[in-house]
Amino acid sequence: MRTQVCIIGGGPSGLLLSQLLHRKGIDTVVLERHSREHVLSRIRAGVLEWGTVELLREAGVGERMDREGLPHLGVNLALQNRAFRIDFQKLVGKKVMVYGQTEVTHDLYAARDAIGGKVICEAEGVTLHDLDTDAPFVTFVKDGSEQRIDADYVVGCDGFHGVSRRSIPADTLREYEKVYPFGWLGVLSRTPPVHDELIYANHPRGFALCSMRNRNLSRYYIQVPLDTKLEDWPDEAFWEELKRRIPTDAAERLVTGPSIEKSIAPLRSYVAEPMRWGRLMLCGDAAHIVPPTGAKGLNLAASDVHYAYHALADHYLEGDDEGLERYSERALARVWKAMRFSWSFTMLMHRFPDQSPFEQRMQEAELEVLESSRAAQTVMAENYVGLPY
Amino acid sequence: MRTQVCIIGGGPSGLLLSQLLHRKGIDTVVLERHSREHVLSRIRAGVLEWGTVELLREAGVGERMDREGLPHLGVNLALQNRAFRIDFQKLVGKKVMVYGQTEVTHDLYAARDAIGGKVICEAEGVTLHDLDTDAPFVTFVKDGSEQRIDADYVVGCDGFHGVSRRSIPADTLREYEKVYPFGWLGVLSRTPPVHDELIYANHPRGFALCSMRNRNLSRYYIQVPLDTKLEDWPDEAFWEELKRRIPTDAAERLVTGPSIEKSIAPLRSYVAEPMRWGRLMLCGDAAHIVPPTGAKGLNLAASDVHYAYHALADHYLEGDDEGLERYSERALARVWKAMRFSWSFTMLMHRFPDQSPFEQRMQEAELEVLESSRAAQTVMAENYVGLPY
Repeated sequence: MRTQVCIIGGGPSGLLLSQLLHRKGIDTVVLERHSREHVLSRIRAGVLEWGTVELLREAGVGERMDREGLPHLGVNLALQNRAFRIDFQKLVGKKVMVYGQTEVTHDLYAARDAIGGKVICEAEGVTLHDLDTDAPFVTFVKDGSEQRIDADYVVGCDGFHGVSRRSIPADTLREYEKVYPFGWLGVLSRTPPVHDELIYANHPRGFALCSMRNRNLSRYYIQVPLDTKLEDWPDEAFWEELKRRIPTDAAERLVTGPSIEKSIAPLRSYVAEPMRWGRLMLCGDAAHIVPPTGAKGLNLAASDVHYAYHALADHYLEGDDEGLERYSERALARVWKAMRFSWSFTMLMHRFPDQSPFEQRMQEAELEVLESSRAAQTVMAENYVGLPY
Repeated sequence: MRTQVCIIGGGPSGLLLSQLLHRKGIDTVVLERHSREHVLSRIRAGVLEWGTVELLREAGVGERMDREGLPHLGVNLALQNRAFRIDFQKLVGKKVMVYGQTEVTHDLYAARDAIGGKVICEAEGVTLHDLDTDAPFVTFVKDGSEQRIDADYVVGCDGFHGVSRRSIPADTLREYEKVYPFGWLGVLSRTPPVHDELIYANHPRGFALCSMRNRNLSRYYIQVPLDTKLEDWPDEAFWEELKRRIPTDAAERLVTGPSIEKSIAPLRSYVAEPMRWGRLMLCGDAAHIVPPTGAKGLNLAASDVHYAYHALADHYLEGDDEGLERYSERALARVWKAMRFSWSFTMLMHRFPDQSPFEQRMQEAELEVLESSRAAQTVMAENYVGLPY
């Protein structure tokens, strides 16, 4: 088989890139290790930057998002019982869209299906070859038989554990990492969200977040120690702990119900450089991981897709290779700024096991500065709604 | 002897408070442990927030400062060879004044002398008594004989090592501290400053600062390990190291000369709460220490003096004790924000011994955000020129 761009990974970034390139007449094949059902069952983030919203529209998959998504014009930060709002609309004239990653992926699969996009699921043993030549190719096993795809370019959208990043020689890769000493215990429940916007809460017992996927699907999180076991947190205990950590008025309004999903995620910041090696470009989690604070994961993947899409479109349609040559540099410039935001937002809102009383007061002072300074709120808003591409 | 307000410490904050109260007809006595010559020989900070400038004018000691001080409309930040400017005037319509603390103290002594202010220097064994009663008093030894001053209020302006804070019972005092794993090696030289504004430089070899006291008196600093010895840094070695850490164009312009003062200062953040106990109020270093990054030390002392001055003036002239009752709360609200600023500016600009490559990239990303976001620059400018009282 031959294609122009072979995309490794059928999650939202791989599908989005495939869809965008298709609309420019560029041929792609998407290889996904898991089944489509598996991909669509993953519960992930739910807040889209406006740049991501516009990219989804450009890909022709914005219709249901625009109909069902919830535009959020601000976000709420709380320190114990004291809360204040960052008004994106007033501060930077922008907003974000609450629309689950699962829905985005669903819409993208539907769009690929509608125009016969080549998405090969359950492709096992995907291996990338000759990436540093002009004739890279990908081999994999599908239904027991080995297959080969020759391509001009390979784009790795296969996540942190995927094969793409590991195909770059170790002596070429520079890795940066920070592991945080806690995780997030998340609960999804079919209940109306406690508030019509998100609430991020810094509390002596630990961080909490009130989020949502839609008007009848709430997503709540609490900070937990790394060695926490799910069985120690029956629903009742989760709701009690959440109520303790969020402002009283929210706790009193909170509608609880059975969890339909419950999981613990560790928090990590990770970046691999470069993001291009030979004919391979990395997008999203394949190259970098952010802690979920501030919801930058999917948005950063979309940002990478934006740069890869324009680089490939310029190459095929304009004969201009500058975007390909500068892909790593451009994508990383934005990645590092988003890394900084999610790192500093994580540092601001969580309680750390070794945190001194002085450092705790620094968190409180930072939140007071945020509450009182329009400029500080503007910095938060600029980063939350997403920096320009 | 009897006075209305007994002020412990004849440095700039004690003298400024004495001078301000005098102009409202409130009687003070200032007790200073050292000789006036000793106080005037101390080399300290040199950047005044505009609020400090206005308070000095209100105290009637602004004339020479307004004539000889250098208004600075911005400040420069550098990351290795890349520098950018924070334009205070454009961003927040304010500026700062470069005028040495030694000069401020000199002007304050001259003003106290001119109107016969009672400043008792070389007062030994100062002891505070009955602070939790309505009749506090202070004893000390002057020229070999014990003396006693009865007062309505005692204000502790006697610095970190002074007796005032230690007069508050240990079980009442809450202390917060952070010690930084490096110091500043400072050199004063009679040379024209390398630039007409300050340059703060983040460099892999460590932080450097190009500052000044006036047009022919430069003050330069480099970050050094805590165990550094002065004798390891002859002038020539200092200048060579400074040149390595600042942008090339500045290094090429740098005029070097013999040091007229050279010293190493450790960096520490420290806050004691409360700042009032009974009839005792603490001002400045007696209650808190900031690292020198951002020059908040003297300015924070002036801010405390502002609140103490208005509290005492309201008490004596209006019979209103709210300012006294809320002194600690009001002074501390501003103290903690300035603590946050000097802490975060210190964390941003220095290289830490245990800093991971990820954390170093966070510094770089933060500086890139500062360079590119007007809102981020505004936050820096708001804090650098001084938050409102």
